Amino acid sequence: MNETAIIPDPPPDLLQCVAQALEEDLGAGDLTAQLVANAPVSARIITREEAVLSGRPYAEAAFRRLDPAARFDWTASDGDRVRAGQTLCTIHASARSLLSAERTALNFLQTLSATATQTAHYVGTVAGTGCIVLDTRKTLPGLRLAQKYAVRCGGGSNHRLGLYDGILIKENHIAAAGSIAAAVAAARDLAASVKVEVEVESLEELRHALDAGADIVMLDDFSLEELRTAVTLNRGHPHSTRLEASGGISLDTIRAIAETGVDFVSVGSITKHVRAIDLSMRFEG
Amino acid sequence: MNETAIIPDPPPDLLQCVAQALEEDLGAGDLTAQLVANAPVSARIITREEAVLSGRPYAEAAFRRLDPAARFDWTASDGDRVRAGQTLCTIHASARSLLSAERTALNFLQTLSATATQTAHYVGTVAGTGCIVLDTRKTLPGLRLAQKYAVRCGGGSNHRLGLYDGILIKENHIAAAGSIAAAVAAARDLAASVKVEVEVESLEELRHALDAGADIVMLDDFSLEELRTAVTLNRGHPHSTRLEASGGISLDTIRAIAETGVDFVSVGSITKHVRAIDLSMRFEG
Amino acid sequence: MNETAIIPDPPPDLLQCVAQALEEDLGAGDLTAQLVANAPVSARIITREEAVLSGRPYAEAAFRRLDPAARFDWTASDGDRVRAGQTLCTIHASARSLLSAERTALNFLQTLSATATQTAHYVGTVAGTGCIVLDTRKTLPGLRLAQKYAVRCGGGSNHRLGLYDGILIKENHIAAAGSIAAAVAAARDLAASVKVEVEVESLEELRHALDAGADIVMLDDFSLEELRTAVTLNRGHPHSTRLEASGGISLDTIRAIAETGVDFVSVGSITKHVRAIDLSMRFEG
Amino acid sequence: MNETAIIPDPPPDLLQCVAQALEEDLGAGDLTAQLVANAPVSARIITREEAVLSGRPYAEAAFRRLDPAARFDWTASDGDRVRAGQTLCTIHASARSLLSAERTALNFLQTLSATATQTAHYVGTVAGTGCIVLDTRKTLPGLRLAQKYAVRCGGGSNHRLGLYDGILIKENHIAAAGSIAAAVAAARDLAASVKVEVEVESLEELRHALDAGADIVMLDDFSLEELRTAVTLNRGHPHSTRLEASGGISLDTIRAIAETGVDFVSVGSITKHVRAIDLSMRFEG
Amino acid sequence: MNETAIIPDPPPDLLQCVAQALEEDLGAGDLTAQLVANAPVSARIITREEAVLSGRPYAEAAFRRLDPAARFDWTASDGDRVRAGQTLCTIHASARSLLSAERTALNFLQTLSATATQTAHYVGTVAGTGCIVLDTRKTLPGLRLAQKYAVRCGGGSNHRLGLYDGILIKENHIAAAGSIAAAVAAARDLAASVKVEVEVESLEELRHALDAGADIVMLDDFSLEELRTAVTLNRGHPHSTRLEASGGISLDTIRAIAETGVDFVSVGSITKHVRAIDLSMRFEG
Amino acid sequence: MNETAIIPDPPPDLLQCVAQALEEDLGAGDLTAQLVANAPVSARIITREEAVLSGRPYAEAAFRRLDPAARFDWTASDGDRVRAGQTLCTIHASARSLLSAERTALNFLQTLSATATQTAHYVGTVAGTGCIVLDTRKTLPGLRLAQKYAVRCGGGSNHRLGLYDGILIKENHIAAAGSIAAAVAAARDLAASVKVEVEVESLEELRHALDAGADIVMLDDFSLEELRTAVTLNRGHPHSTRLEASGGISLDTIRAIAETGVDFVSVGSITKHVRAIDLSMRFEG
Repeated sequence: MNETAIIPDPPPDLLQCVAQALEEDLGAGDLTAQLVANAPVSARIITREEAVLSGRPYAEAAFRRLDPAARFDWTASDGDRVRAGQTLCTIHASARSLLSAERTALNFLQTLSATATQTAHYVGTVAGTGCIVLDTRKTLPGLRLAQKYAVRCGGGSNHRLGLYDGILIKENHIAAAGSIAAAVAAARDLAASVKVEVEVESLEELRHALDAGADIVMLDDFSLEELRTAVTLNRGHPHSTRLEASGGISLDTIRAIAETGVDFVSVGSITKHVRAIDLSMRFEG
Repeated sequence: MNETAIIPDPPPDLLQCVAQALEEDLGAGDLTAQLVANAPVSARIITREEAVLSGRPYAEAAFRRLDPAARFDWTASDGDRVRAGQTLCTIHASARSLLSAERTALNFLQTLSATATQTAHYVGTVAGTGCIVLDTRKTLPGLRLAQKYAVRCGGGSNHRLGLYDGILIKENHIAAAGSIAAAVAAARDLAASVKVEVEVESLEELRHALDAGADIVMLDDFSLEELRTAVTLNRGHPHSTRLEASGGISLDTIRAIAETGVDFVSVGSITKHVRAIDLSMRFEG
Repeated sequence: MNETAIIPDPPPDLLQCVAQALEEDLGAGDLTAQLVANAPVSARIITREEAVLSGRPYAEAAFRRLDPAARFDWTASDGDRVRAGQTLCTIHASARSLLSAERTALNFLQTLSATATQTAHYVGTVAGTGCIVLDTRKTLPGLRLAQKYAVRCGGGSNHRLGLYDGILIKENHIAAAGSIAAAVAAARDLAASVKVEVEVESLEELRHALDAGADIVMLDDFSLEELRTAVTLNRGHPHSTRLEASGGISLDTIRAIAETGVDFVSVGSITKHVRAIDLSMRFEG
Repeated sequence: MNETAIIPDPPPDLLQCVAQALEEDLGAGDLTAQLVANAPVSARIITREEAVLSGRPYAEAAFRRLDPAARFDWTASDGDRVRAGQTLCTIHASARSLLSAERTALNFLQTLSATATQTAHYVGTVAGTGCIVLDTRKTLPGLRLAQKYAVRCGGGSNHRLGLYDGILIKENHIAAAGSIAAAVAAARDLAASVKVEVEVESLEELRHALDAGADIVMLDDFSLEELRTAVTLNRGHPHSTRLEASGGISLDTIRAIAETGVDFVSVGSITKHVRAIDLSMRFEG
Repeated sequence: MNETAIIPDPPPDLLQCVAQALEEDLGAGDLTAQLVANAPVSARIITREEAVLSGRPYAEAAFRRLDPAARFDWTASDGDRVRAGQTLCTIHASARSLLSAERTALNFLQTLSATATQTAHYVGTVAGTGCIVLDTRKTLPGLRLAQKYAVRCGGGSNHRLGLYDGILIKENHIAAAGSIAAAVAAARDLAASVKVEVEVESLEELRHALDAGADIVMLDDFSLEELRTAVTLNRGHPHSTRLEASGGISLDTIRAIAETGVDFVSVGSITKHVRAIDLSMRFEG
Repeated sequence: MNETAIIPDPPPDLLQCVAQALEEDLGAGDLTAQLVANAPVSARIITREEAVLSGRPYAEAAFRRLDPAARFDWTASDGDRVRAGQTLCTIHASARSLLSAERTALNFLQTLSATATQTAHYVGTVAGTGCIVLDTRKTLPGLRLAQKYAVRCGGGSNHRLGLYDGILIKENHIAAAGSIAAAVAAARDLAASVKVEVEVESLEELRHALDAGADIVMLDDFSLEELRTAVTLNRGHPHSTRLEASGGISLDTIRAIAETGVDFVSVGSITKHVRAIDLSMRFEG
């Protein structure tokens, strides 16, 4: 659920993403749609279950690609919670464009709303703790930015988008550089304007990361006890920074983790698992 | 599980699919990998849970794109059942290519193996009935052919790939044509070498579809009782054909449906839902 | 000629096809058109010979790409027979767009109308026999779907579009599988919703193909006598199916072949040979 | 026929051209080829009729795209005359790549050899006159450069490739500029290093074009008598230049035209019409 | 400065060029612009220094790509001289599109106006001599046609655009062919409608090039004395043609070179060096 | 100069960048290169002036694209200072590939080495101050990442690559948000893992930015006096951070600015201006 936040801008690869999905469905052309006269008609998209909506601009782009004059009356915005049975949208377009783009549009809506809905569950579970739910790079191939958008529709926040817009120093990089301090220094050299995060597996490594001036520290698979100690340690450190809990986090464990006082929890399952929302399209009249 | 079947050819869009997924992760370049010397190293891909493997050629393509000399020692083929803790593959490649392609390769493996594994559950559940498990067009946008490949790794069979390689006549088309017979005739005119399937919602419609000489008939949301009657009706009809059960099929219901004698059951959930397989990559030495 | 049939939808790759053809002509820009003021003008496309028209949406797309406001008044639809000297279209557009797109537009019209016209000759020659004229995969590289569209404008029907939407079992596949029955069974496994055609070279092979339940049988280079026997054999067979005559068919031989009672004749020459229709564009006023 | 000339370089868009043709045939994958084990095999390409060969690099690229290790033993080079029944090439490649690329490779060879063969007929007919056979921009959409290559294989020479590499001033441009002299002057301003050709319809216009210093003059639809006068007029003019005869030239008329002493004849029919050469591929052993 | 000339057409790759530049700046999306409400606003593009304007259609395309409804009020055309402090354009568009496209639009304007301005300096310096300033192929990678357009905005003329639209015979080609005469003859064979230029390094080579009938001769690094002799030699030769001076030409030397009577001077520095014009964009109100 | 630093990885768009530049030069093919036999030859790239080298992988990619077997012997690495007259590389490749790729390869080398060389001048000028030279987004359209790579070859460091990998809050964003504090808070919400930089125009705004916890503060057009005060103010602030001086910085002014103690100076002129390095290629033997 995303009650107060601004609806985020959809990503710049939206049109390309939709074109490609449509192309893989249409291929050499929709054989069956040619059985129907291409008159203007209306259809409604209905959700059969409660969800947080995400994917409106994707669905619109799919229909508009086949009928630039398609018009849409939505009853909800991306980020809104919708109820089972709700008509999400009434579409006015040519009959063949509706038939040919239907599946592509629904596939985007059911997949992205799944991510938004799942994110909202996690966000709701930590409500009041001040802890922020982050996504990861464990995403569906080709849908990285679309899913990152859906996470924000669900009230989550985005971790780095890819390997290019953030530095995350792990065990191998530390070994290569010789020490956490050396790795952080090398990273600063590489990209002065990018945040440097260090993944640590013990309180001692956390101390080294703070000494090195890391911008964020990821606490990997820490116990609740260790997380609490880490939060205390960080608050008392001269280079105090932000802490992120990570590793096997589920709806059952996230609340307790958030209550330790960490700034972020990153959750792979909101983007790597998908339980598609059940949607359908029905022609009117 | 896919014990006797031939491993299917991966789809022709494999390289493009992998290039795009890699590009969305790499963007302007992997900042962190540059901290590590680019020496030849080895790493292992390990599964943390039992699964049916799918995605080998995708994973290989991801690493090879960054290091054309990468070598792979696999312990399992696509379609094989693998056990928790198993090393699936040992990779020998340059350190930076391993770091930079790791997430993309794992994202393909965890997503496609999820589809193969789930398909194998359904296929196993109907074992011995002779009924074939089909997929649908409810897929992850951009991954249609990859998921269709994974379905075959899991022992399922592919329904039409898109709107272009099969005709599926539904309510709207029948209404437009005036009758099932008229719709089937028009479809034959359109594409002489493509199968014509008719979706029916009653036994009477089934009879009309058989009279019209449909190549397949989809029985939408039929009760078990109705399915049994449909099978009998079809066997006695001069234009007897193949029957497909469809609509809200789950692991709980599929066995009974298969036992009615239908030829196919089509299952949307094997491709629209994803429970990613838990995989990791570890550097050696 | 295509009097009663619906005008088929142009293929989804139309815009890409036109963009590419325009690009190969325009390259770094039309040098000569810059000598002319870019005022709105009119021009007419005229045919110098009788033909069946095909390519209207291609021609329009070429002009519209350079002048989105171009308007067209056509005197004929795709699929219509036009007479020598007929003005096919009056175009209102900017002078430079007319000059720069002229050749590309005419190249599409003269090539696709050639295919439609030739197809119509074959279709006319078998009129009344109930036999359907099919195309093949012997097409101009890059113009497969455009030519398949033109075939339908000419009253023909489309065989499979490519290697992906139909299975055609030939000698090599039969040898690999061990028998026609084994090959057909393997094909059914591969793609449950795709038609399986078997190419046979003798009446005995035809019998095997029928026994195996082939969806279509292609009779390769059968004599008229053999074709007649094949038709009789098929009618009496429990798995009676559709028969296609193939191999070296010309305008001289097609009528006799059609009269043997086969369902289809496939003709390579309608797409592999081109006798471009003679068209020109003239500026008005 | 192209006995003494260097074999021209194939055009830079070769790989893209082949990739696209292969893609339109392969689509979502070659279903039938999967019935065959993917062992290394050999096959021969045979021509059933006499021809001038063109398209070798296209055919090779098609097979190599599916099997980078494919090897080729050719008995003829592009530009060579081949006899009916000749084995043009023996190919060693994986069985599936041979089956899947066969049609695409043959489609290129049969289309481009058609153009080369037809060009060679025209070139042979004017042998000894010193007159050069030129192509035009009346080409198959998407195959401009491939056909221009085939024309050179057939012993012809290339007119401008498109609108960007030459200026051809016609009636409309002259009207816009006010006079031939003004049009030529404006053209020189536009592109100092590009040849300026003027199309004329009378001897008086020819004189104006020579006065203006045109680099080439195209004589449109001149009678033989007029052509002879034009040649004489040009020889005596202080800005004597090269003359091109154009308009409705056929194998019956080209010899007499060439004997008038014009430098070039341009022939649309060698690229706009196609009589595909009859080729086939046979597996060995 | 370009007072009387027609504004040239922008090159056909304009949209692709702009899309790519925008994409490299926008990547996964403009993070900062999302802080601003997306209301319609106005902004002005101002030049801080005197210049010859070039790049208007590029700047417009950048803004229009993000806001198709963007409107522009320009105070100058491409090719116009503008003064320091001048408002070049007032743009009305959505706030986010202005922020997101600003840098891309300015990068085009500052780079192309630099080329136009520098060209105009050279053109102004040779004013009255009748000598034409040509560009070269020493351009910024990816911006060849854009810079060639800017050269024309600055009053210069374009040498060949690339390797495909003109032949320039140099030392290596002459060595390969055996003589200048042989090289020119071979070149004429290759492409009958393309100009053949020969680069010579001595008066003797000039004589050979004229004897061979070269369309242009490039005089490489000739002294003023040699240039004068070359001009005289050319005027007296039966195949008198156009002469181009080339090699290390600067603003200091070009006037004297032009006064020798050569037809062209080609100047690499107008496209290979860039002194970006200082522009800025300011929001109004 | 780049003596101690690691040579940075070239950006992922290298191949695409080179392909495009080659394509704009080659177009429909290199006409002149066909005059030369395609034998293996050697050539040397020589610099006529002192420079810092950048662009090796670009040059190699250009030659390799036309001759995959091309080999290179370099005497210097990217980032090395080279002297006038130095042979940078000896290339062994086919004659035509050398001729056809020469200009594209040199255009990359001369442009990128220009950026590296100019960057090294700035870096050398601030040597010993600890101040880091940053680039900006004022780059040549299409060459953003290539120039960012060249900056690092020259010893500079990269500011954000585009609008997607860093947040830079300017006047308009502050106005929209209501205050610096509000703008920074909104930015943190947008992208938790991205650095937030604030551009300030006064010491008071600097204080607000520090209070808001900005990750970097850009001091726009501050006098030396103001810069010194800003550095002192920052050191004493509880949220002390890094300071960047920006605006009209030249080789004359940068040393004094660096000595004020700011962490970074960003310099637009190293990427927006280009004084191409004078390079040439000579064939051997």
